Amino acid sequence: MSGRGPVLGILGGGQLCRMLALAAAKIGIKTEFLSDDPQSPAADVALFHHARYEDEAALARFAARVDAVTYEFENVPARTAEVLAGLKPVRPGPRALAIAQDRWDEKSFLRGLGVGTAPYANVERDADLAAAAAATGFPAVLKTRRMGYDGKGQRIVRTRSDLDPAWAELKKAPCILEGFVPFTRELSVVAARGLDGQIAAYDPVENRHENHILKTTIAPALMTPDRARDAVALAGRILEALDYVGVIGVELFDTPSGLLVNELAPRVHNSGHWTMDACTISQFEQHVRAVMGWSLGSPERQSDAVMINLLGEEALGWAGRPLKPGQSLHLYGKTEARAGRKMGHLTTLSPKSVG
Amino acid sequence: MSGRGPVLGILGGGQLCRMLALAAAKIGIKTEFLSDDPQSPAADVALFHHARYEDEAALARFAARVDAVTYEFENVPARTAEVLAGLKPVRPGPRALAIAQDRWDEKSFLRGLGVGTAPYANVERDADLAAAAAATGFPAVLKTRRMGYDGKGQRIVRTRSDLDPAWAELKKAPCILEGFVPFTRELSVVAARGLDGQIAAYDPVENRHENHILKTTIAPALMTPDRARDAVALAGRILEALDYVGVIGVELFDTPSGLLVNELAPRVHNSGHWTMDACTISQFEQHVRAVMGWSLGSPERQSDAVMINLLGEEALGWAGRPLKPGQSLHLYGKTEARAGRKMGHLTTLSPKSVG
Repeated sequence: MSGRGPVLGILGGGQLCRMLALAAAKIGIKTEFLSDDPQSPAADVALFHHARYEDEAALARFAARVDAVTYEFENVPARTAEVLAGLKPVRPGPRALAIAQDRWDEKSFLRGLGVGTAPYANVERDADLAAAAAATGFPAVLKTRRMGYDGKGQRIVRTRSDLDPAWAELKKAPCILEGFVPFTRELSVVAARGLDGQIAAYDPVENRHENHILKTTIAPALMTPDRARDAVALAGRILEALDYVGVIGVELFDTPSGLLVNELAPRVHNSGHWTMDACTISQFEQHVRAVMGWSLGSPERQSDAVMINLLGEEALGWAGRPLKPGQSLHLYGKTEARAGRKMGHLTTLSPKSVG
Repeated sequence: MSGRGPVLGILGGGQLCRMLALAAAKIGIKTEFLSDDPQSPAADVALFHHARYEDEAALARFAARVDAVTYEFENVPARTAEVLAGLKPVRPGPRALAIAQDRWDEKSFLRGLGVGTAPYANVERDADLAAAAAATGFPAVLKTRRMGYDGKGQRIVRTRSDLDPAWAELKKAPCILEGFVPFTRELSVVAARGLDGQIAAYDPVENRHENHILKTTIAPALMTPDRARDAVALAGRILEALDYVGVIGVELFDTPSGLLVNELAPRVHNSGHWTMDACTISQFEQHVRAVMGWSLGSPERQSDAVMINLLGEEALGWAGRPLKPGQSLHLYGKTEARAGRKMGHLTTLSPKSVG
């Protein structure tokens, strides 16, 4: 793309795409994105290709205009990724995408790495239910292997007799049954790996959910230096095993007996939004740098931070409102404030704690 | 503009417009801009109205699409501002614009406020030269009253006999002759005033120029708390006297006998770029908040910072290059690296000093 400067292509046009485009613009990179949603919030700040993900002619036109392709959501159809990968680098690569799209593959990959997870079992046929129940005990959670997020495609199963109806409710889609883990809290590590293999991890953070949606992230997580090092090392092993390029979100359970991985998000992650205000290089810039083949920036934290998601109508009052010292507002430009919809977030900074 | 969310209009499409648009997008505000330059760097991230500033039909179409109008450069034609002000709020207002466009009016305004300036005199006719020379002494600088920036429209005059030829070189345009000031360094205060009269000033900074172009900003300036308070108070007096709305850049000379004002920039200012990385609310977001009638955010500094402008070809090597801890790169997406052209900047953060 000589004469135009570097151009990044993104699949999806939501707030993650929007914040990626803003971060790309900071460092002189243009963004074009492809989405099937005519109301994409990213359209305010980047060039919009409105097309279905299955429209291969549109994918080819899109690929011809960009230097590399990334995505803001993990449910990119496999065929879409394959078509694009034949034309331009797609980062993170197809293996990371495939693993993150299927909970069984994801858990199996993690176990293969020697990484702890909750007990789990595959459920594809009625005959699998008894063995699965024996493997996990109760209570447990039945989750569709594919396409679940923010609590969608999940049923809590309190007793053996709840299991068959729960599976029927999920239309007998391939599932995993996951045992409950007695965790003390939920953590995440947002980390990046460059094309050159360099790894840069942000400090582990604590996450609090409401109704299965992230509500609050506390950065850094209060934890022992040893446990924090374990969390970062674990993210590094995952990045290397996947030959990963870009930012990943690794969701963890902190338990008395050690860290367990809950799930992987092969993209920028809501629990990394605090980095926009508290770190020299945000997760969005870091991801852009990585997928464009640039050297990574430093993930150091300049301040402590608490990030609160603004959901649905809760966001409406924030436009124009006074801010306290340390408060930084982010609104995603969405005009329709549906209940539970991520409309923005508020980060509050405080002086950096030692460590 | 119901259904579209708030929209900001900007005159000019350079890097200041681009960074304003990015800051507006952070808080959910759309940006449209009008510029006569087809190569406007802001076009990557905001909607571009390509038109002459004198095209009143285009101005009317532009005004109809936005909620408020601001500008990224002070040489907006008076008629353009007048046409727009009849249709939508133009902020900062016409008085600030008029004063900042004419060095004689600017100096006279400052003197009227009791603010110190370099000695100066008006030069409109040949007959003014002798009195001007007597008022300032030599060496001095002859500057056109209008349209000068980055050292353009200026001649250094070392002796009385240089004065007539210097004025001839400036085509006998209305000028001021300014005496040299024995300053110890150059400072600036970037400050904002809201529609409600609230004032928020960033810490004063030290600026170093090369070839009349800002090269380095050091934040905060090393100065006594008393002198820093004087600088901030002086900016506040100027903002109030102008009934100003938005961000202003007040350029100062630090002299043994006190602070003198060099000039005013009625817009976001190059010496405030460090706030993007080191403050909770950047000068760009602060300006957007002010001109949209929002409450101001806090101007507190989270880190110390040194900002270096990347000029001309110097910027080219930075794309993709490794960054050290604390380094944050900004590139403006300009493809043509002309000598001395502002292509980007690099901010290096360090822990906040006390005070």
